[in-house]
Amino acid sequence: MEVAAPEPTTARLEGLSDGIIAIAATLLVIELAVPAAGEDVGHALREELPAIAAFAVSFLTILIFWVNHHALFRAVARPDRGVQFLNGLLLLGISFLSYPTAVLGRTLQAGPYERSGAVFYALVLAGTSGLFAGLWVYLAARPQLLAPWARPGAAAAVRRSLVGPGLYLLAALVALADAPVALAVVALVALYFALPPHILSRRSA
Amino acid sequence: MEVAAPEPTTARLEGLSDGIIAIAATLLVIELAVPAAGEDVGHALREELPAIAAFAVSFLTILIFWVNHHALFRAVARPDRGVQFLNGLLLLGISFLSYPTAVLGRTLQAGPYERSGAVFYALVLAGTSGLFAGLWVYLAARPQLLAPWARPGAAAAVRRSLVGPGLYLLAALVALADAPVALAVVALVALYFALPPHILSRRSA
Amino acid sequence: MEVAAPEPTTARLEGLSDGIIAIAATLLVIELAVPAAGEDVGHALREELPAIAAFAVSFLTILIFWVNHHALFRAVARPDRGVQFLNGLLLLGISFLSYPTAVLGRTLQAGPYERSGAVFYALVLAGTSGLFAGLWVYLAARPQLLAPWARPGAAAAVRRSLVGPGLYLLAALVALADAPVALAVVALVALYFALPPHILSRRSA
Amino acid sequence: MEVAAPEPTTARLEGLSDGIIAIAATLLVIELAVPAAGEDVGHALREELPAIAAFAVSFLTILIFWVNHHALFRAVARPDRGVQFLNGLLLLGISFLSYPTAVLGRTLQAGPYERSGAVFYALVLAGTSGLFAGLWVYLAARPQLLAPWARPGAAAAVRRSLVGPGLYLLAALVALADAPVALAVVALVALYFALPPHILSRRSA
Repeated sequence: MEVAAPEPTTARLEGLSDGIIAIAATLLVIELAVPAAGEDVGHALREELPAIAAFAVSFLTILIFWVNHHALFRAVARPDRGVQFLNGLLLLGISFLSYPTAVLGRTLQAGPYERSGAVFYALVLAGTSGLFAGLWVYLAARPQLLAPWARPGAAAAVRRSLVGPGLYLLAALVALADAPVALAVVALVALYFALPPHILSRRSA
Repeated sequence: MEVAAPEPTTARLEGLSDGIIAIAATLLVIELAVPAAGEDVGHALREELPAIAAFAVSFLTILIFWVNHHALFRAVARPDRGVQFLNGLLLLGISFLSYPTAVLGRTLQAGPYERSGAVFYALVLAGTSGLFAGLWVYLAARPQLLAPWARPGAAAAVRRSLVGPGLYLLAALVALADAPVALAVVALVALYFALPPHILSRRSA
Repeated sequence: MEVAAPEPTTARLEGLSDGIIAIAATLLVIELAVPAAGEDVGHALREELPAIAAFAVSFLTILIFWVNHHALFRAVARPDRGVQFLNGLLLLGISFLSYPTAVLGRTLQAGPYERSGAVFYALVLAGTSGLFAGLWVYLAARPQLLAPWARPGAAAAVRRSLVGPGLYLLAALVALADAPVALAVVALVALYFALPPHILSRRSA
Repeated sequence: MEVAAPEPTTARLEGLSDGIIAIAATLLVIELAVPAAGEDVGHALREELPAIAAFAVSFLTILIFWVNHHALFRAVARPDRGVQFLNGLLLLGISFLSYPTAVLGRTLQAGPYERSGAVFYALVLAGTSGLFAGLWVYLAARPQLLAPWARPGAAAAVRRSLVGPGLYLLAALVALADAPVALAVVALVALYFALPPHILSRRSA
């Protein structure tokens, strides 16, 4: 007979995940640089604009991750240790995101290394959204972990989950040539995922 | 048949929003400058007073935003993608608020650019509270998204939601002339919204 | 008929309060100074010890505030605007606490102004715990806001709620003479409130 | 008759604990150093790699602590003041963890004091996980605080809870000789606790 470590329920896993995602989004702002005492505020804010843009894109991207996370966990009936472990890595990626966001913001302002900053940023996004794909692959191979209503659509969910990493890898390629355009691509990806799912999946419906 | 992306429930949207709002309010404090080692503490605290005042006003303003957010989402029966998107922008504005608060606090201490700092601060508040108005406009045009009891009052809610952006734009105008007075106006707006709603809406009751 | 601003329920007020209190406690750590590259770590940690002590005392004090906050809101049946406003000020005080904690930690390390730092710290604690007393006074004068079971004990709760501010004012007086002793007094106050309530209130039972 | 301080329920204690644990994990990232303006980003990121590794190991370790915390509180039927106090110290340890993580990251980069940094890191982990053991010892001696189903397994839970502190003390010993290897040991401990419990406790089953 065992006392410890009953599996956390989906509800409590979601609670922790929601907390971490909310904090990760809100922490992004503290990387923005406040103008020094006596500095011209208008000028300083214009200089900070690229960092503010990176902040806004990352914030909305994390909200999209949250929507996808919610959709995924609604489909999970039984989060086994594998799901928990992949979810832990996913939360690690989301929490880490404020670092590449700050790096990108800083380099977009200062010039010479902005493409390196944007490649790093896009690769972290590709890896993080790749963990969503990993979770869907893991779940599609173990339909007993899914709610019955979610099983028929698992293959379509796997296919759709590959779109994110693919687009972020594309953004990383773009970043090799132009950092601001790469950031715009990431912003467009957020818009793409904000579209209603029935538009995106009409073919597989 | 679709696995992914069932609409988040109002309850879960509210949970995420509450988390982000709580964090945004609490993070404000980390922008306050701790006196350097060996500095006269009493003198340093007096110098920090304007930044502490900006912190307190923003904190209470965010709590008011929370009350209004709660009132709005109690009226929502079905948060569609449009509601979610506008809510995401609203949370972005609330999370961003610690940046203009820090800018205002810094410039109130250092002098020459305090009016620029206060204009920036008031405009961010106007934009953020404008998103509340945008949500009410969006919902009033789609009464099927509202709870039945909330539909008759939607037009009054739209009118009332315009008061906030209007007052913050007024504060931005005041800021062109005097930054501390503009901060006092923002503090008064918080008090205005803290008044019981039956006083404010007696006419439309 | 009114759409907006139904009163937040006690449950949702408690949820926001819990979130802010949890964040305020956890944020305290970021004010600790990490040793510079190449600095002797053992020496730097010994120098940081007073700041770590202030961190630990404030963390435990905030947990005590949380327990008291929970006890208070369990007794509230209907949180009117007055309760909400006082609670907002209370959360402002708790969120602000990381600033005087950092000031105290810094001055305890650097010497000349440690007593000013400790007075400031103790006065913020006195004001914050005074808001608990203010809430109890407000509620005792409006028993209809309390749960029926809580009404007979309201007067005793008011008396007990004055102990905290009194002890923190005492700590402020002690701080005029000796800062580390004042921090020890605050630590003892936390222990006092950690004692089971039936011991503290045997007389009024 | 008593108004104040009814015991917090397990549910509310868990809520606060979950909040603090989520924030502690997510705050870890803000200690990572963003490259200075104009610095070679690739080179700066390579230099930051040890700090990023320490971030990732601490993040996953805190998630493991969360799983263990959840398992422990599922078994608690009645959290008395002793449980609350030990839980408060445990949350203090988990919140504090970002400081030794930052110290370790900094010293792993800069060299001469990396072993001191790793010893400090491993000792804080040993103390924090020791508080889990302390909680289990406390509960095993007071079976009336445990849920009936959890009582037969309490002795086994105590034994298993000693594994963590033991392994972290081992990591501290390793740190005296080699800091990166000590960090690897801590990473392996996280993997060990990520294994399903029925494997770890087959003997006591």
